[in-house]
Order: sequence, then structure tokens, then C-alpha cells
Amino acid sequence: MLEKMFNPDSVAVIGASRNKEKVGYAVLHNLIESYKGKIFPINPEADEILGIKTYSSIEDIPLDENVDLAVIVVPAKLVPGIMENCGKSGIKNIIIISAGFKETGIEGARLERKCVRIAKKYDIRFLGPNCLGIIDTSSDLNASFSAVMAKKGNIALISQSGAICTSALDWADNRNVGFSKFISLGNKADLAENDFLSDLIDDSSTDVVAAYLEGVKDGPGFIEMSRRVSKAKPLIVVKAGRTAAGSKAVSSHTGTLAGSDEAYDAAFVQGGVIRADSLEDLLEYSRAFSMYDIPQGDDIAIITNAGGLGILTADECQRQDLSLAGFEEKTIDELKEKLPPAANIYNPVDVLGDADPDTYEYALNTVLEDENVDGIILLISPQAMTDIENISSRVAKIIQSATKPVLCSFVGGTKISAGEKILTGSGIPNYTFPERAVASMRALSSYRKIRKKEYHSPPVIEADRDTVARIIEKAQEKKQRTLGLEAFDILKAYNIPVVEKEIAKTLPETIEACESIGYPVAMKILSPEITHKSDVGGIRLNLTSRADVEKAYDTMISSVRRYMPHATINGVQIQRMIEGGREVIIGMNRDVQFGPLIMFGLGGTYVEFLKDVTFGLAPLTENEANHIVSSIRTYPLLAGVRGEKPHDIGCIIDTLLRISQLSLDFPQILEFEVNPLVVMDEGKGCTAIDMRLTLRES
Amino acid sequence: MLEKMFNPDSVAVIGASRNKEKVGYAVLHNLIESYKGKIFPINPEADEILGIKTYSSIEDIPLDENVDLAVIVVPAKLVPGIMENCGKSGIKNIIIISAGFKETGIEGARLERKCVRIAKKYDIRFLGPNCLGIIDTSSDLNASFSAVMAKKGNIALISQSGAICTSALDWADNRNVGFSKFISLGNKADLAENDFLSDLIDDSSTDVVAAYLEGVKDGPGFIEMSRRVSKAKPLIVVKAGRTAAGSKAVSSHTGTLAGSDEAYDAAFVQGGVIRADSLEDLLEYSRAFSMYDIPQGDDIAIITNAGGLGILTADECQRQDLSLAGFEEKTIDELKEKLPPAANIYNPVDVLGDADPDTYEYALNTVLEDENVDGIILLISPQAMTDIENISSRVAKIIQSATKPVLCSFVGGTKISAGEKILTGSGIPNYTFPERAVASMRALSSYRKIRKKEYHSPPVIEADRDTVARIIEKAQEKKQRTLGLEAFDILKAYNIPVVEKEIAKTLPETIEACESIGYPVAMKILSPEITHKSDVGGIRLNLTSRADVEKAYDTMISSVRRYMPHATINGVQIQRMIEGGREVIIGMNRDVQFGPLIMFGLGGTYVEFLKDVTFGLAPLTENEANHIVSSIRTYPLLAGVRGEKPHDIGCIIDTLLRISQLSLDFPQILEFEVNPLVVMDEGKGCTAIDMRLTLRES
Repeated sequence: MLEKMFNPDSVAVIGASRNKEKVGYAVLHNLIESYKGKIFPINPEADEILGIKTYSSIEDIPLDENVDLAVIVVPAKLVPGIMENCGKSGIKNIIIISAGFKETGIEGARLERKCVRIAKKYDIRFLGPNCLGIIDTSSDLNASFSAVMAKKGNIALISQSGAICTSALDWADNRNVGFSKFISLGNKADLAENDFLSDLIDDSSTDVVAAYLEGVKDGPGFIEMSRRVSKAKPLIVVKAGRTAAGSKAVSSHTGTLAGSDEAYDAAFVQGGVIRADSLEDLLEYSRAFSMYDIPQGDDIAIITNAGGLGILTADECQRQDLSLAGFEEKTIDELKEKLPPAANIYNPVDVLGDADPDTYEYALNTVLEDENVDGIILLISPQAMTDIENISSRVAKIIQSATKPVLCSFVGGTKISAGEKILTGSGIPNYTFPERAVASMRALSSYRKIRKKEYHSPPVIEADRDTVARIIEKAQEKKQRTLGLEAFDILKAYNIPVVEKEIAKTLPETIEACESIGYPVAMKILSPEITHKSDVGGIRLNLTSRADVEKAYDTMISSVRRYMPHATINGVQIQRMIEGGREVIIGMNRDVQFGPLIMFGLGGTYVEFLKDVTFGLAPLTENEANHIVSSIRTYPLLAGVRGEKPHDIGCIIDTLLRISQLSLDFPQILEFEVNPLVVMDEGKGCTAIDMRLTLRES
Repeated sequence: MLEKMFNPDSVAVIGASRNKEKVGYAVLHNLIESYKGKIFPINPEADEILGIKTYSSIEDIPLDENVDLAVIVVPAKLVPGIMENCGKSGIKNIIIISAGFKETGIEGARLERKCVRIAKKYDIRFLGPNCLGIIDTSSDLNASFSAVMAKKGNIALISQSGAICTSALDWADNRNVGFSKFISLGNKADLAENDFLSDLIDDSSTDVVAAYLEGVKDGPGFIEMSRRVSKAKPLIVVKAGRTAAGSKAVSSHTGTLAGSDEAYDAAFVQGGVIRADSLEDLLEYSRAFSMYDIPQGDDIAIITNAGGLGILTADECQRQDLSLAGFEEKTIDELKEKLPPAANIYNPVDVLGDADPDTYEYALNTVLEDENVDGIILLISPQAMTDIENISSRVAKIIQSATKPVLCSFVGGTKISAGEKILTGSGIPNYTFPERAVASMRALSSYRKIRKKEYHSPPVIEADRDTVARIIEKAQEKKQRTLGLEAFDILKAYNIPVVEKEIAKTLPETIEACESIGYPVAMKILSPEITHKSDVGGIRLNLTSRADVEKAYDTMISSVRRYMPHATINGVQIQRMIEGGREVIIGMNRDVQFGPLIMFGLGGTYVEFLKDVTFGLAPLTENEANHIVSSIRTYPLLAGVRGEKPHDIGCIIDTLLRISQLSLDFPQILEFEVNPLVVMDEGKGCTAIDMRLTLRES
């Protein structure tokens, strides 16, 4: 779709400049240095720049010249006019490098919206504004003001920050890392991550997709797109603005609303994205993927000439959920045969401090052949006898033809650098410390599971949507924003089992209700103002007789009156007591970027103090609902411990799916919570005991 | 104490060699290159090596020559004989570089023990065997076979792995990082970490102590010593063998028993040690301490020419519990005055992509003067207009005279390197990614709190130790290794409140006991074989009447018989039911390196599935016990939530201190658990309901 943006027949640079300090110079210069097609510099005050004929405006370019791409570097306020001209001249792809738009405030945002309107009118797609531009190494296009051209390679980098692009290019330049495409997103007024991700799925020059994002433009679309990308190639993302401090910084940077990190985490899991925790991880993981095959399992071997480094690596493997491979007997025999007697021939293999290139080569080849080994981490400490250059050359040759990943960590500085240079020259990374090699191995391995993942459609949920619509409408008419027990019919409409209950407004009504439901019962205060009923004495449990109920009614009402003298009391609700079972909570709130974010956890203190909760984004599939439930740390309490019967997890999953659908069906619902949902033994179902719902201001 | 080992008047090298491939050559060569005192090479087959007169044995050195230090590099089996000779010649300090001792197996361990015996006989202190040696840059002594001499500096590095020393030296060489002392511990047969730590406390050339350890030789001594060191200077330790995989690798490396990571964590907290999670962290933190002042608070400012990097740094600050400083008005006014209008003058300060050296200098000086700012992280992305060299020079000059830490992260590779070189030349680190700068800032800041920490003595605990001794003796006589409820007198002897209970062997006795204690009661089976009573139906709670008790007694006995037909049943225990309160667990097991490790957590699932437990090492002080209790995540449940009354935390602390003392008094107790201890409201005390104790095999 964006074919002509990355591989144009000819390019116009609007705002080309002969002043070396100006961006308009840098862009033109970069294009001339890289690009083989025709270039049209536009500058009303020059006849030629850098030896190329210059036009005073787009309209002056002869009509038979097919300008596929225009790069705009003029001051912001001139951009809309220029876009009009581009539109009239039939240019369909534009990169707006100029800054001074949304990121500067209201006036800039207005200008930006104007650009979007013009683009729509002329069917133009544009990148930016406020970006560095793009680089495509397969079409030799550097349409950016970056001072460095990317080396050819198989990594596509998408970045919402131009300066991150610059740092990444400089990092890569020093490490012989190449890119297929470099895309600086800027303000994402039109084209955004999803558009480029879509293009990269079938881009044969790209094997790895890496992205620095401060937010996504279309959350649900991002999940969908990530699934498609990650089926084809690894997609690694670092998300800036994870914390409150960071997301405050984001909004002052590009005016993006960052959204909650829980939502991003859920989106990344549901979309098959490998999340990098830092820019360093993003770059290192990408480099690993660009170079190595995916390990076929999690069993890792370590080869080292330094016991201490081997131990640190073993520690980190375990911390990263990788295991140390148990060697085949053949391997042990072969290592025993040729390694010195003091060497450790088990994993980690210690070839000893004086190991020569032959020994390293032999050990590496032997361990590579072991079928129990899925990947290798090879360590070197530059000891007195260590022939770092020859070891590096031998090892590099083996790695290049190996079908299992062999990640190197040569640990040191001065003496290591000769070996590092040899590795780098062969396109092999050196991880400066073993922990970094392990982290990259972990990333490689995680993609194996992602690629195998199957995505199903969310189930079709039958529901009486009319009833829910009526309840919400009525509440809105009454300007009531919070609904509680009285809205249980919403749950019923979605076939979520609710506790048997009746509402009573007086003591006699209450007694009648109790006798009809049957003892034991629970009694709860009904008041729109009271959200934490137990805090004001608004809940009485386990009432077993008429006398109990009479006493409880009086003390409850007076307790509530004392705590909240001005609360409207609409009566009490009588519920049958549910005996046994395990309490869980299902909640929903709306993330600004991804929509309904569903939360799950065990009831009570587990949620509140231990934050033992998991999240998923609607629409949930059955697999995803299952994942959410089984990912809490206290899952064993649901699955059954010490011979306890398992609880009805199927019923929880079903309820999650129904609430996911409800949240999608009714965007008027801002927040929603079923708390508690009591889950009985397997096959015995679950029951919603209480709920709370907040409506959007209408 | 070890003064003469690091600053000897003269040194003998026993096993000096003229063969360049031999360690005996490297050691002599290094000494000649570094050391100004007299050197005596010992080699029976040479007259001179490297131009120095060689002696055939120690005894041949004229008696009036005062040899303070002997370095031994002969084959292992010759070492004991040589040590005898050294002893006879009055040499008091020895470094045994030779390998082939404990690390190779039984025979080697025997040799090593022999060396220890000889050393004791002659009052010799020795380092090693199986080590790299030592370097002291203040006395210009390189008594090691390292290929690189350390640069002069203020970091002392102690390492249990010689190869880690080598990697660290090579790393430092490339980064202009210097050391005061370099100590390779090897097998620690005699001298170990505590001996050197003790020496470093008053070593005026050392400002920072860093250590790589696989284990400690004397755990309690290490805590004591760490406290003394960390009062004087920061002590940073990376501990290898944290995980099961790692500690398995440790034992095959140096034959060290690694001990549990929980015990190390507790020891590091109690000793004021800054724990590094990797070798990289150890080196980077040490470098930061060697260079920077400690920030006076946790409020950090960020200065950047790249919004994206600023956000990532803000995120990481929050994740590391540092806050972004709120600027004084003066700062904001000054920044507004001179920075370009599009710049962000709040924190993170964005000086924009085209910032020149003047702008960086101005921003840095302005922010440094802000009293709300405790430390600064300064970021650079190498953008088109960035004059990296001039910015680096200006910034370096400011940093060198600043009293607040300014940590730099220039992010990139090729173009960054010029700036990095300037920083490095001025002794200023460049952190390759912002997250690393934040981690080092966090480490610097954490030392502020450590230095302020006060260490008190553990309280004196009155106890009836004779009773406990008798109970244990009796059990040992009966070959009984597990004690339960029947050993409640142990708790009583240490004045730990226990639930009122009686033991009964028959149903009539049981009923009598119940009536005397008063209903409601709990009934528990008494059997030495049954550890999880509830699993076999061996617990009945809340019995409120004689009828209840009769029924419960029969069903309990038959249930236990069914589950464990061969268990000896010694009767039942009747306890008064404790109503209300919160259940906690206090446990103890013995760590191989540190002794009694006390565990604390809330009862039940909190411990089992959420691992919400904390640890401390005996002897606990009151502060430490308090720390253990308040560090669990569920602490709010004890301290009182939502208007709930706080529980009696003082009583928990008191019980912890008593159990700490009990564990120290009776090393025969291998494991110990009070579970549950029921904690009532504040001032209402706590009560041990059940206990379990395992004795060491006698």
C-alpha cells in the first residue's frame, strides 16, 4: 500500500535549502547520496542546489514527471498550502518533517487537523509531521535528515521519537547492525504504526520488526495487526511512558495519552508482541533476531573459560526461566576425552583459564551436536593465556553455519575488543555481560511460543440487550451514574448467574422476603451514595431467624444513619447466603487507547494488597480468558490444593467472556465490577453476589 | 594486620620461571614491572631470571634480608613442604597461587588442610590457594599473574574468582577506572573476605569496596564486618549462585556451599551491603561511587536533547523509587529566559534536538543550583546538529566541580564515542543507556540510608533454658526427631504466650478436659508421624458442647485411622478456641553459612502461594524484627486497614526476638515453626496455637 513511499520513482523536496545548517539541506543531501531516482528540489529563491535544478513550486514540475513522494521541510504554517498544491499535482505520498504542530499546543493542533483534512480531500497519505523521515535500504532511499545512513540489514525500526532513531542508528553503525527500513512516526496525524506494520508483514527485506512507541493510535487495531505481524516475524516493542512520571513526560513530548501499562501488557500478550523493557533490550533483542535461528526449546548450554562467569550465567538462565541442558552421554564422553582433566565437562562446561582455540572449537562443536541442547551461551574472560583473536575467528565460523543460536559474551574491555571486532565483522553480536546474552536468548526462545499461538474468535454471546439498554437509559434519565445491586438484571440479561435476592423497603417487607427466600440470609443496605457498604455497617451476614433479621435491620439502619446521615436509603436487599465457594472479582474499566480492560483476581485482600490480579482486553477469546484466570499467583487456590476439589473455573471463564461482550455492547458503561463472584466446586457453577457499575456522563 | 602482605619490604617468588608460558614467569615479571622493593626469585635450576639473582631455596636467602611476603607458584603437592620452609625462615605472609587443591577433590582438600595446619604452626597468614594473587596500586605491588596492572584508583575489589578479576581489570582498563587493591581470594583456606574487609575499613587509599562472592566463610562474622565497613565506605557485593542452577555450578567451581539466597538477602540488608544483581552492576555501581558524591535525597532532574530518552529515563526513575524533582520557580524562570520557546523547561528538561554546548551548559548549571534537585541525569542523542565533543568538554568541567552527582548517558555508538572519550578522560563514566545511569543513581542514593542506619544489640531474653534442654534431651533419648504440640513447654520457657490446652488419651479424659477449659474448644490429633493434621482429618474446630466433642472425637480417630493406619496416636489435644485475630507464621531453619534464618509471613495461602514472606538472620535486633514484620506486602492487614484496629505488632516482634534467641541457644533445633501465631488487636497480645520442631540427628 505504501509501496511508492518507500520506493518512489521520483521525489520532491519542498523547502530544499543550500544552507548547511538547515534541515532542508540535510534532507536533499541525504537523498542525493542515497537515491537513484529523480530528485526535484523546490525553493522559490534558488535555481539549483547541490548541482540539481531547483523549481520554485510543485506546480512548476513538468506534468509528465511522476512525483511519487514529496518531503516537506518548510515552516509549519506554510504546510497546509503546500499540501493543497501537492494534492492538485496528484502527489499521493508525503513526509512532513517540519515541526510546530500538535506538540506545540492548540494552534499547532489546529494546523495539523487542517493537514489531515487536505490529505483526505486529495486521497494523500502522509507521515509526520514532526518526524525525522524514512530510510529504506533496499530502495536506497534516505528521505530523512539523519546524519547517518543505515547499513543494509533485515531489521525494520519504527519509532515515535526521531532522536531515538538517531541514537539507534549511531548504536547500530558502531556494531555493524543493518536495517531494512527506518520509520520516524512523529505526530502520527495520518499514517501511524498500524499502517507500517501492515506493510512490513510481507516485506521480504524485513525479518524483524522493532518499535519504540509512546502510545498507539488505534488500540484494538494494533492488537489485530500485531497478531498478523508476529505470525510472520518477531515484533519487539519498547513502550515509553509506563509509569506515572513517564506518561506525564510523554504527554508533554508528543501530546500522546499514554494509556495504562496494564492495558499495554495485555495488548502485547494478546497480540504476540515481545515486550522490551528498555531501549537497550529493544536493540539487543532485534539484533539477536536478525542474526539467529529460534531455539527449539529452553535447554541452554554454557561454555566458559571462567567458572565465575559460568555461575552468573547459570543464575540468570534460571531467573529467566531457561534451563541448563542435561548432556547426552556421548557429549560427556567426548568432552572427557579431549578436555583437560580439571575441566568441568558437565553444564556449564568449564574449558579452564588456559583454554586455546582448539579447545574452544572442540567444546563448541561437541556441545552443538548434543540433541538436548537448544542454544549455547559462550563466555570468555581474557586471561593471561587467552588467544582472543583466534578463538573469536574459530567460534565465529562455527556460529555462522550453526542452526542453533550461539550467543557470545566476551567480558572485559581493552583485550576483549580485538575479539569483539572479529565477531562484529562476522555480524555476530558480543554481549558485554553474560546477563545480556541470557536476556536475548530468552527473547529468542519466547518467539517460538508466540509463533505457535493460535488466535480464535471471541464466542458469540446471546443476551437480552434491550433490557440492558432500558436500564441504562432509565438511570441516565434520572442522572444516576452509579448502579449497584438494583441493576442485577443487567447480569441476568447476559446470562450471568446471580444470587437469589429480593428488595424490601420496610421491616415487615424484609421479614416477608426472608421467609420466602429461606434462611440463612444476608442483608445489605441499598443506597446509591454508599459504595463500600461494609465500612458503614451496611452488611449483615448469616441471619438465621426472624429474630436475627429484626435485630439486624434496626442496628443496620441506625449504623448507616450515623455514618452517612445524608445518604438516601432505598431499602435493603435480602440475599440467600451462599455457603462455601471461593470469592473472585471481575472488573472492567476503559483504557483510553484500548477500550474495555477486564481485570480478574481473587476477592478481598488478594486484590487490594497483593495486587494479584491479571488483565485482558475485550473482546476476550476463550483462550485469553483462560490465560487471565490461570495467570494469577493464587491460581492453585482455584484449581484445588492439597486434595481440595477444583473450583468451577469454566464458569469464571464464561462470566469473563460475557462481561467482555457486555462492555463492548454498551460503551455507556465506564466502569463495572462484579464483586464478589462466588465460585463453587467444579460443575457447580458460580454466582454473582454484588456488582457496581458507573455510567459515562451523558 | 595484613599491612606487610600489601606493602612488603621484600618479596620471594617461589617457583619463579624463565618460561614465558608459565605462571611463575608472569608473577615475577609483574613484580619487576611494578614493585620497588627487593625481589628474591626461588628456582633451584636457575642462577638468574629476568636479570635478577635467583636462589635455590628460601633457606638460601641471607638471614638479614627481611622477606615479608612469599608468592608460591609451584605444583600443589610441593606447597606444604615450601610452607614449612617459609615458616622456619620466619615468613609470615604467603600467597599460594598454585591450583590443585580443594577444587580438584578429596586429595586436593587433604593437601589444603595440611597447608592450614602448617600455617597455624608458624603463625603464617596466607591467601589462596588457587588464586590470581593481589595488586596494590599504592605500594605499586603486582603480586599476581594478571596480564594487566590496575590503574591507580580508589576501588578495592575482592573476588572469589580469578577470571572475574581479569575481566574486571580489562573492563576497567578500557574505561579509565582505577583500583586501590585487587584481591583474588581463591579457595579461602586461611584468609577470606572478612580478613580483607577488616583491613579495608581504615585503608585511606580505598573509598569503595566491591566484591564478587560465591559464598562467605563465616556468615555471622560477615554481617558484623559488613556493618563496620559500610559505616565507613560503600560495600557492594554480587553474589554468584543465587539460584539452584547457579549454586550447583558454584559447588563444582570452588567447592563452596552457596547457602540460600534468602539468607544472603537478609545478611546484606542487616549488614548494610548494597547488593548488585550482576557483574555489570557491581562494576558500574563501584565506578559511580568512586567518582560521585552521594545525593542528599531521591529527587532527580533529567536534562535531555531527546524527548524519547527523557521519557524512558523518567519511567526508570519511578521504577527504581526515585522521584522527578519539582523545580523551584527561579529555575523555571531562568530556563524559560534562555532556552528556546519550544523547549520543555519542566522536568525532564528538553533542550531540543539542536541544542548547542552553551544551551547544555546553561541548563545544567541552572538545574544544579536548584535546591530541590539531589542529582541529575544528563542525556544526549547524537542528532544532526549535536556538537558532541564541545558539549562533553563543557559538561565534564561542570561535573568535576559539582557537589551533586551528574550521571551522563550519551546514547549511541560511533558518533557518541568522541564524547565518551572526553568523559572517560575526565574520569566520568558514560552509561550507554539511560536505565543504567538510573540504576547507578539508585545505588548512590541507597547508600545515604545505609550510612545513617544504627545498629543496636539484640535484647537480652530471659528464659528457662534448663527446661528446654531437658525436653530436647528426652526426645533425643527416645530418638524422636519431630516435636509438636507436646513441646509447648519450650515456648513457655521462652515466655512466648501459648494457647491454653490439655492433653487427653481417652474420650472421658477428653470430655473432662473440655469442661475444664470451657467451650468452644478445638481438638487436634496427637501423633509424631502426622505433620499436616488437617490433611488426615486430624483437626476439629469450634466444638461448643459435650455432644459436639463426643461426635468429633469418634469421627476424628476413625478418619485418622483410615488415612494413616500405622500412625501412633498419643491422644488428642484440647485447646480453647481463639476467636478473631489474624494468623501469622514464624519459622526458622538453619542456613549452612549464616545459621538460624527466621521467616515471617501471614498464615495460610499468603505464605504458600504468594510467597509473601520475609527473612532475617539471628540474632535479630528489635529494629530488624520490626523490618521483617513491616516488609511483607500484606503488612496493611496487620497494621489495620479501612478503620480496622491495628493488630498487636509489638507482640509479634517480641516473639520473633524470643525465637531468634531460642534458635541461637539450641543448635540442636534444626527447624522450627510456630504456625499459627494468632495476633489479637493492639495491646491484646498474641498466642501460639501450634508448633513443629525438628531436631538434628544426634
